[in-house]
Amino acid sequence: MTSTLPAEVTATRTLVQPALREAVRSLQPAMRRVVSYHLGWTDEHGQPADAGGGKALRPALALLAAQAVKAAPEAALPGAVAVELVHNFSLLHDDVMDGDVERRHRPTVWRLFGTPAAILAGDALLTLAVDVLERAADPVATRCLTAAVQHLITGQSADVDFENRLDVGVGECLDMAAGKTGALMRCAAQVGALLGRGSPVAAGLLAEFGSNLGMAFQLVDDLLGIWGSPEDTGKPVLADLRVRKKSVPVVAALNSGTEYGAALRELYRNPDPPTEEEVHTMAELIERSGALAWTRERAHRYVGEAGTCLDRLAPPEPIHAALRDLTLFVVERDR
Amino acid sequence: MTSTLPAEVTATRTLVQPALREAVRSLQPAMRRVVSYHLGWTDEHGQPADAGGGKALRPALALLAAQAVKAAPEAALPGAVAVELVHNFSLLHDDVMDGDVERRHRPTVWRLFGTPAAILAGDALLTLAVDVLERAADPVATRCLTAAVQHLITGQSADVDFENRLDVGVGECLDMAAGKTGALMRCAAQVGALLGRGSPVAAGLLAEFGSNLGMAFQLVDDLLGIWGSPEDTGKPVLADLRVRKKSVPVVAALNSGTEYGAALRELYRNPDPPTEEEVHTMAELIERSGALAWTRERAHRYVGEAGTCLDRLAPPEPIHAALRDLTLFVVERDR
Repeated sequence: MTSTLPAEVTATRTLVQPALREAVRSLQPAMRRVVSYHLGWTDEHGQPADAGGGKALRPALALLAAQAVKAAPEAALPGAVAVELVHNFSLLHDDVMDGDVERRHRPTVWRLFGTPAAILAGDALLTLAVDVLERAADPVATRCLTAAVQHLITGQSADVDFENRLDVGVGECLDMAAGKTGALMRCAAQVGALLGRGSPVAAGLLAEFGSNLGMAFQLVDDLLGIWGSPEDTGKPVLADLRVRKKSVPVVAALNSGTEYGAALRELYRNPDPPTEEEVHTMAELIERSGALAWTRERAHRYVGEAGTCLDRLAPPEPIHAALRDLTLFVVERDR
Repeated sequence: MTSTLPAEVTATRTLVQPALREAVRSLQPAMRRVVSYHLGWTDEHGQPADAGGGKALRPALALLAAQAVKAAPEAALPGAVAVELVHNFSLLHDDVMDGDVERRHRPTVWRLFGTPAAILAGDALLTLAVDVLERAADPVATRCLTAAVQHLITGQSADVDFENRLDVGVGECLDMAAGKTGALMRCAAQVGALLGRGSPVAAGLLAEFGSNLGMAFQLVDDLLGIWGSPEDTGKPVLADLRVRKKSVPVVAALNSGTEYGAALRELYRNPDPPTEEEVHTMAELIERSGALAWTRERAHRYVGEAGTCLDRLAPPEPIHAALRDLTLFVVERDR
């Protein structure tokens, strides 16, 4: 297993970071302080820090998509910044909704600055994203972004709704993942192609590529949420099972029609916090039900479909290789 | 005192309501259900209701601004819908942040559907507002809206911040009001003028008009939050004082340099819920400090400045009269 991002992805940070910082500088001081902390640029006292941001896959995807249609990566910069801002808007609000107290090994914004600050900082980032992209003067790109945000909101709404249900189907669970993760990855690639003045066919193929990459990413995330190593993921062992999350492998197991799925349902029905033993039993039941293998196979299938999009698009060879490496990173990563 | 909206304002609802409903129809079902309840169109079970929306001043202002630059009101329709959506986005999120359990005599959305639903519905309305305005294909108008939203967020952030401070100055309190209320009213008038293809000078004068109208509106709102009659406002007597809100009259009294201001400060310092007697004492202290008269005078001054903008603009007579009636309604209303 590798967790090394392709060089082309890490290289895009050199372009994106200054543009992202410039965008955030336009916020009012109170918002800027909270956002800078969230992005890992400052500590809780506003002092410079380097807490490391996220993987910044979405902006990399936008820049690579522009290059795939033979434009300079700079063409997609407003789109790259916009999708990264939207991604962080959703993290800020999701942490409030899910009550998550830690992100990237640090207290979440609502935990440190209060719920109002987290809601307002999220609102400010969403608005800033639109503003940044609007300056690129491509109405189709802006419409693409707002459509992705609505899809993202629908996905998060379904995720919240699933918490109180035991009858979640595999189809609606995959739809939820398509909203929560697929939509913005799709948008990143599509906006990159649009800003790079790619043909509608090329933009469509890149959108499909992004969508499949996003689905593979989410499924692997779900697997890591159960079987990821705590040192790598920064989360406790079997983290998602401790809060009885309805992630894709869990829902696949619940719907497997096997005795293991039925036993898992009983453990998920109990409202009390699960014991250490129960959490390990849950993981074993998911594996025995065939849902672990199914989810892994499904992730590889999305990667295969992403590869088909790439082959049909036939971008310049170094970009083709970078995008293919990105899909391999997504399924093989361990964090 | 009158609380009757000018006929031209109520008439605009006939145009705005269908467009607003069409926009909301584009949301996903889960969001649509929550938003329809919030807007008073349905009850908590999703059954049609007519709980009456808000005053819809902002959309009326947008349509009147288009007419003031001699365009048809329809020209400003996307702007009117967008500002009303942004207004409701901010109400949904503010109710979560302020912990308000009732709005327009009904339970607030977070209270009824939970905090995640209220956050997501607000996010969806903000995104929808951008999308609706984007279709009008006027990038200046869209930029005007995003700037107003950032200003609104800054105002709400200051409002939250004031809760933990006793040293709030009158200047920063008026700045907060300019953000929370002035910015979106300004934007409503400006976007209406822009979509009506008014000259930059006319759009600037209408923006100033909207800004002054918004400030007058907020100051009167603050007075009604203390001295409004419960039957009219739907809030308890002296509502804002019960939660020790730092509204403009309160901050003016605290900074009055009078013995009454000093006594009010002592009552505001106490963390326990105030007694019935204390609440009445607070109101009397604000009045004696001269802050009630000052706030009222200030509201009239904003109305005067709005009138100056109108006179310089010299719109067609019926529109001039309607906009002047609107400013009179704002200072003379009792709810």
